[in-house]
Amino acid sequence: MRMSSPSTVAKTPLYETVASRIAQSITEGTFRPGDKIPSVRTLSRQFQVSLTTVLEAYTLLEDRGLIDARPQSGYYVRARFPVVTPEPGISAPQLSPTGVSTGELAMLVLRDTRNPDLVPLGAAIPNPALLPVERLNRMLATESRRHGIASVSYEIPPGCEKLRVQIAQRMLTAGCAVSPDRLVTTSGCVEAVVLSLRAICRPGDTVAVESPVYYNFLQAIDLLDLRALEIPSHPRHGMSLDALRYALDHNPIRACMVIANFNNPLGSLMPDEYKKELVELLVARDIPLIEDDIYGDLSFAPNRPRMAKAYDRSGMVLLCSSFSKTLAPGYRVGWVAPGRFQTEIERLKGITNIATSTPPQLAVAEFLANGGYDHHVRRIRRVYARQMVQMAEAVGRTFPAGTRVTRPEGGFVLWVECPPTVDSLLLYEQALRAGITIAPGPIFSATGKYRNCIRLNAAYWDERVENAISTLGQLAAAMS
Amino acid sequence: MRMSSPSTVAKTPLYETVASRIAQSITEGTFRPGDKIPSVRTLSRQFQVSLTTVLEAYTLLEDRGLIDARPQSGYYVRARFPVVTPEPGISAPQLSPTGVSTGELAMLVLRDTRNPDLVPLGAAIPNPALLPVERLNRMLATESRRHGIASVSYEIPPGCEKLRVQIAQRMLTAGCAVSPDRLVTTSGCVEAVVLSLRAICRPGDTVAVESPVYYNFLQAIDLLDLRALEIPSHPRHGMSLDALRYALDHNPIRACMVIANFNNPLGSLMPDEYKKELVELLVARDIPLIEDDIYGDLSFAPNRPRMAKAYDRSGMVLLCSSFSKTLAPGYRVGWVAPGRFQTEIERLKGITNIATSTPPQLAVAEFLANGGYDHHVRRIRRVYARQMVQMAEAVGRTFPAGTRVTRPEGGFVLWVECPPTVDSLLLYEQALRAGITIAPGPIFSATGKYRNCIRLNAAYWDERVENAISTLGQLAAAMS
Repeated sequence: MRMSSPSTVAKTPLYETVASRIAQSITEGTFRPGDKIPSVRTLSRQFQVSLTTVLEAYTLLEDRGLIDARPQSGYYVRARFPVVTPEPGISAPQLSPTGVSTGELAMLVLRDTRNPDLVPLGAAIPNPALLPVERLNRMLATESRRHGIASVSYEIPPGCEKLRVQIAQRMLTAGCAVSPDRLVTTSGCVEAVVLSLRAICRPGDTVAVESPVYYNFLQAIDLLDLRALEIPSHPRHGMSLDALRYALDHNPIRACMVIANFNNPLGSLMPDEYKKELVELLVARDIPLIEDDIYGDLSFAPNRPRMAKAYDRSGMVLLCSSFSKTLAPGYRVGWVAPGRFQTEIERLKGITNIATSTPPQLAVAEFLANGGYDHHVRRIRRVYARQMVQMAEAVGRTFPAGTRVTRPEGGFVLWVECPPTVDSLLLYEQALRAGITIAPGPIFSATGKYRNCIRLNAAYWDERVENAISTLGQLAAAMS
Repeated sequence: MRMSSPSTVAKTPLYETVASRIAQSITEGTFRPGDKIPSVRTLSRQFQVSLTTVLEAYTLLEDRGLIDARPQSGYYVRARFPVVTPEPGISAPQLSPTGVSTGELAMLVLRDTRNPDLVPLGAAIPNPALLPVERLNRMLATESRRHGIASVSYEIPPGCEKLRVQIAQRMLTAGCAVSPDRLVTTSGCVEAVVLSLRAICRPGDTVAVESPVYYNFLQAIDLLDLRALEIPSHPRHGMSLDALRYALDHNPIRACMVIANFNNPLGSLMPDEYKKELVELLVARDIPLIEDDIYGDLSFAPNRPRMAKAYDRSGMVLLCSSFSKTLAPGYRVGWVAPGRFQTEIERLKGITNIATSTPPQLAVAEFLANGGYDHHVRRIRRVYARQMVQMAEAVGRTFPAGTRVTRPEGGFVLWVECPPTVDSLLLYEQALRAGITIAPGPIFSATGKYRNCIRLNAAYWDERVENAISTLGQLAAAMS
């Protein structure tokens, strides 16, 4: 193939012509989101243009948000979302606090994961085929052997030092300079969140949450006899700060909880300036922020977003996270950077279960230090980026007209807003009978909202999943 | 050596003569508690008497409680306690409920374990030299490899099935026929206890506990905004049922907690008929019993005692335990048999931290199935039996007159009641300065009792520990 000669495209620079050819091949689906596009050298040979021209073309495509450069790796098509299916609008929960009772449903969705016969679109679990199982297990074995007696002994709070050092180093890439001494390891992120809530709140207190909200937040709030106040949230930018400000002015709010980066279930990514504003807004009122960053590393862009904790100068943000979405959910290794609540979190962790299991902490610490964590994460987020688009497209094709779907820039969950006549609780039951598990909308609300919404786990993509989406679409259509 | 000829001992049967010779060698310290005595065959040769005579002699010594037969192993001197130091009397806490605030001290005692320069007589941790570290770690490695993806996946409540099957089989030896489906694995025994309390109680409820009481019970009660009612307890038989009955008649008690077998800190072993009575007493009033059996397998007698749960016909006993005292505290693998609270416990476990870490559960399950758990436990309880006597004797030698010490028949903690002028909080501080950590009495009470008592961890015994006991004795004497 030879590029059109310079004469015929005299008015456009050659690199723009190259760029539009590539853009076209992306639009046509030759290269799909997450795919690697040809290297600069290959394209230069193919198009018979200079290396500089190709580089300029790629820079242009980067600027337009079509591709991403990945150091030492090349250029990749950025995850985009089909234009056919619009995004949901901002949520509109009622602005008065409510007791929580999501009941048995959330438990059922988690329980569905134990049934291998079900297509697992319900719980937000990572695709096991994308977890570094063998390397982790090797490290579990070698580290336990190497530490001998220490491997069977308590790692009492704040927990395994080597792991805390690795986490502290890694938090720098998210904009947080936190000393390893200011971290506490936990049995997963959920435990970190529950401990944080408990450190801050007393029974009866009100907690501001996003809406829709991760159902474990609601269950934790319920567990501690607290009340949830659902704040409207935008599918792109997360919790509405205007709505939060209004709520703060009208309600005695004791704490605020957010998943700022690649929210579960909305997929929203709160812009950095909003994160800063959120922290300032709360600190000015002496209200702690519990931030869950469990999806932060799964950014489809080359660099992961900052944490809200990065804007915390007064120790009022309790940053919670874990390796359950990237390495091993079953290891139950998470952590909290509790700011000024350090002592109380250590105390509560000790009372709750004394310590986090030692061998998994040693294995994860070693994986972070010498296991190629960055490489691993780059690999899996490429897959999730592609699958998220594939699933969103499939929803667009098969769900009834009027359906909306989110366009997350990270993580692996999609939020689908069906036409108002669709009953997601009924859909959940019908889907189960068809061998598919989904997360129905009402479990993401303390007030029974989102009856016409579902959350889909996009961590899996194959023919079986594609057929499942098609089945779901038909079931939903039958209700429209 | 030849036994005295039959003629000179004409009036006593020959086997009695043999028995008294052995008894004497035990009294003189030739054979010490936990030691193996010569086999029947050896002694028959040595004393030139028939095998039958030796067998009869050993049966007599068994009946007198001096030795124990261990199948496939031989005869061992039973753990006894020095007569020089009397046992403490029954405790006498006040019979009105109180808010709990054991404060920072309990945390400090646990924290002391991280300092290898301190002689570890404080926290009730097992001797790491007696843990099967290498075998466990080998099983951790092989089981994780064997289970592949399952080893990094959630074991959501009720938890790892293979482990539950093994635990259910083992509970039979403690008199409990519980189906594996009626067990929930937890991150250690403390978590099992906290989940149990939460499943039963609401803030403000009163819980009846032993006195002195394991301080984690008090902290759990505090955590959940409950109130503790301390019931007088006997150093041999545990919680006084008369006192409990009185308390039940005069207080609205919502739950009762006991460590019936080898209590921490008292070392008491509640007789089976008392266990039965305890369960009946509570069931008649519809009050659940939370039983902690973490020391149950560490019985110095050949057969472990039954659990109170063995007398539970109505699902009102929540049996909590773990492998932290026998296999690996750092693995954080425990369980609860929650009776009629099964569903609620599963739900609470899920909200607290979703699941217990998978690889340690797999390793422990394999150890129970094929690792020689019984043999291992027989070995370590022999050591603990001997050390407990050695430490009690050392206390008797070095502590001021008027000191009392318990005589547990299992476990590895000793409770020392010093003369009233001894201040254990001061002793704790002075001991720390001397490089020794102990558990001061007041952390075992919600009402600041036991100021003149300390708990000693007898899991270690060597010259350093012996010297530490001597130092403690001198420090206590200086306060008398």
